[in-house]
Amino acid sequence: MRALVFDRNLEFRGDYPDPVAAPGESIVAVAVAGICGTDLEIARGYMQYRGVPGHEFAGRVAESQNPALRGKRVVGEINAGCGRCATCSAGLVRHCPNRTVLGILGRDGAFAEFLCLPDANLNPIPDSMPDDVAVFVEPVAAAYEIFEQVHLSRNQTIAVIGDGRLGAIVALALKAEKYQPEVTGHHREKLARLAELGLDTAEEFSVRDKFEVVIDCSGSGSGFRRAVELVRPRGKIILKSTAAAAAEINLAPIVVNEISVIGSRCGRFEPALDALAAGKIDPRPLIDGVFALDDGLKGFEAAMNPLNFKILLRAP
Amino acid sequence: MRALVFDRNLEFRGDYPDPVAAPGESIVAVAVAGICGTDLEIARGYMQYRGVPGHEFAGRVAESQNPALRGKRVVGEINAGCGRCATCSAGLVRHCPNRTVLGILGRDGAFAEFLCLPDANLNPIPDSMPDDVAVFVEPVAAAYEIFEQVHLSRNQTIAVIGDGRLGAIVALALKAEKYQPEVTGHHREKLARLAELGLDTAEEFSVRDKFEVVIDCSGSGSGFRRAVELVRPRGKIILKSTAAAAAEINLAPIVVNEISVIGSRCGRFEPALDALAAGKIDPRPLIDGVFALDDGLKGFEAAMNPLNFKILLRAP
Repeated sequence: MRALVFDRNLEFRGDYPDPVAAPGESIVAVAVAGICGTDLEIARGYMQYRGVPGHEFAGRVAESQNPALRGKRVVGEINAGCGRCATCSAGLVRHCPNRTVLGILGRDGAFAEFLCLPDANLNPIPDSMPDDVAVFVEPVAAAYEIFEQVHLSRNQTIAVIGDGRLGAIVALALKAEKYQPEVTGHHREKLARLAELGLDTAEEFSVRDKFEVVIDCSGSGSGFRRAVELVRPRGKIILKSTAAAAAEINLAPIVVNEISVIGSRCGRFEPALDALAAGKIDPRPLIDGVFALDDGLKGFEAAMNPLNFKILLRAP
Repeated sequence: MRALVFDRNLEFRGDYPDPVAAPGESIVAVAVAGICGTDLEIARGYMQYRGVPGHEFAGRVAESQNPALRGKRVVGEINAGCGRCATCSAGLVRHCPNRTVLGILGRDGAFAEFLCLPDANLNPIPDSMPDDVAVFVEPVAAAYEIFEQVHLSRNQTIAVIGDGRLGAIVALALKAEKYQPEVTGHHREKLARLAELGLDTAEEFSVRDKFEVVIDCSGSGSGFRRAVELVRPRGKIILKSTAAAAAEINLAPIVVNEISVIGSRCGRFEPALDALAAGKIDPRPLIDGVFALDDGLKGFEAAMNPLNFKILLRAP
């Protein structure tokens, strides 16, 4: 099959082997896939991943032992647990120590004609939901994971640091759930676009504007340090982005100000599917380019442009 | 008065000015003061503090406008808020942005004949409580602060990293409240002493022994990195010690494993006084030396010996 493959370098290959389904797994023909910050980090060596990247997708089940899935339009949860360990038994499949993760850890991903996932990971999507909305289920689920982990009050002051893909989606999810986030970032043009989507934005917060909750979507150590400056004593920092490099961090202010730092990664798909199906979030204004899979390298180049939000790859 | 004074170097002075009480403040004659890790950090330049260090003490009120305090044996909360700002109004005096902190920030401390604190900070102690127990109220309050911030379950697995003063007191407080902490550290002799006090200890945890809660009392960046390795996905790291230097920290595992990191500093004195008065904790076996204030520099030397737990300074 055709696929983008990372092995020291990212390259397009026309002869990559088709995925083979294990028992209980299905093959999905990818319709569209989204390029995420993690994919760019993988292309820089994050997780030492080798194989097909990509974990945001919408597609159609091409092969399945499960008649309820066959031919269905689906999205898919990206963590595949072993199903046997204590973590899986506790319902935390996303944290299974033996897990594979689509396009990130031990399982080829979505920048290809086909991918393979356990049947239990596949979620049928409503006919009314277009592919270019469904492809956002995974990042929207990551945003909704915040509500699963932390209780936020509607009257709390919430800052989102980062005007990238993730910051935009997190802020839209917060707004959809009636919170009042303020988004900051380095790109005036993107902040202006987010303001057009109804979000409160600020080019810079004063250090005196202390927030009860700061959500770091910056993907950089400097963003985290900024979060520590901006959060109130006893406040919360929600850390949404993995930073590829270790950063120099002074832990003293976290202790002195008794800050809680909550790491937050992938989420359950159900609340994201519901929010998108109900039209509470329309992510399509964030799409800044759609490339054919064969032009995937150009798609990656576009995704690396910091002025672009989401770049999609479309299967042939 | 006589005092230990830090101003580039720590030195003993016989002619340091007596403290002057502002309205609503009292003067306390220090009976005994404890040397804490923060004092050693201050002597290395932490907080750019200049003045008399020391914040763990027991003493007797020498001068007060408040007849209820005059002549009373007391301990004292170390954070003095402005009483006017929003943080103070919210009851978070310990986090007042305008606060002074005894022996740490803008207010001379306890390694002196006399100190000065707001009346509201002073807590009378029962006649039955000896000074060498009362001097532990402040660090025990810092340990009890954990329970104020985080709900822990009795059946959770809890690791304490660090066999120093703070690690020992945190572990004793956990045990007093019927938790089952396991303590690890670099010093076999101290672990043996903690085992004699009834604590579970281990020279090393295997990375496979994942804990639901890890309390970092190590005071080093390497202790924090170890905590990240030892905590389970979705687990909690409680960060009790300020590390003077910025450490290289990779934030990715905190996000990937959705760990919560909770900074924790000073606590209310009441639960600590109650626990010590009830004999739930006897900290006296941790006392490894008592020096006269005039020999305070020798006391600091002893406190820097990693094989010692608590060193006390006794007023003349």
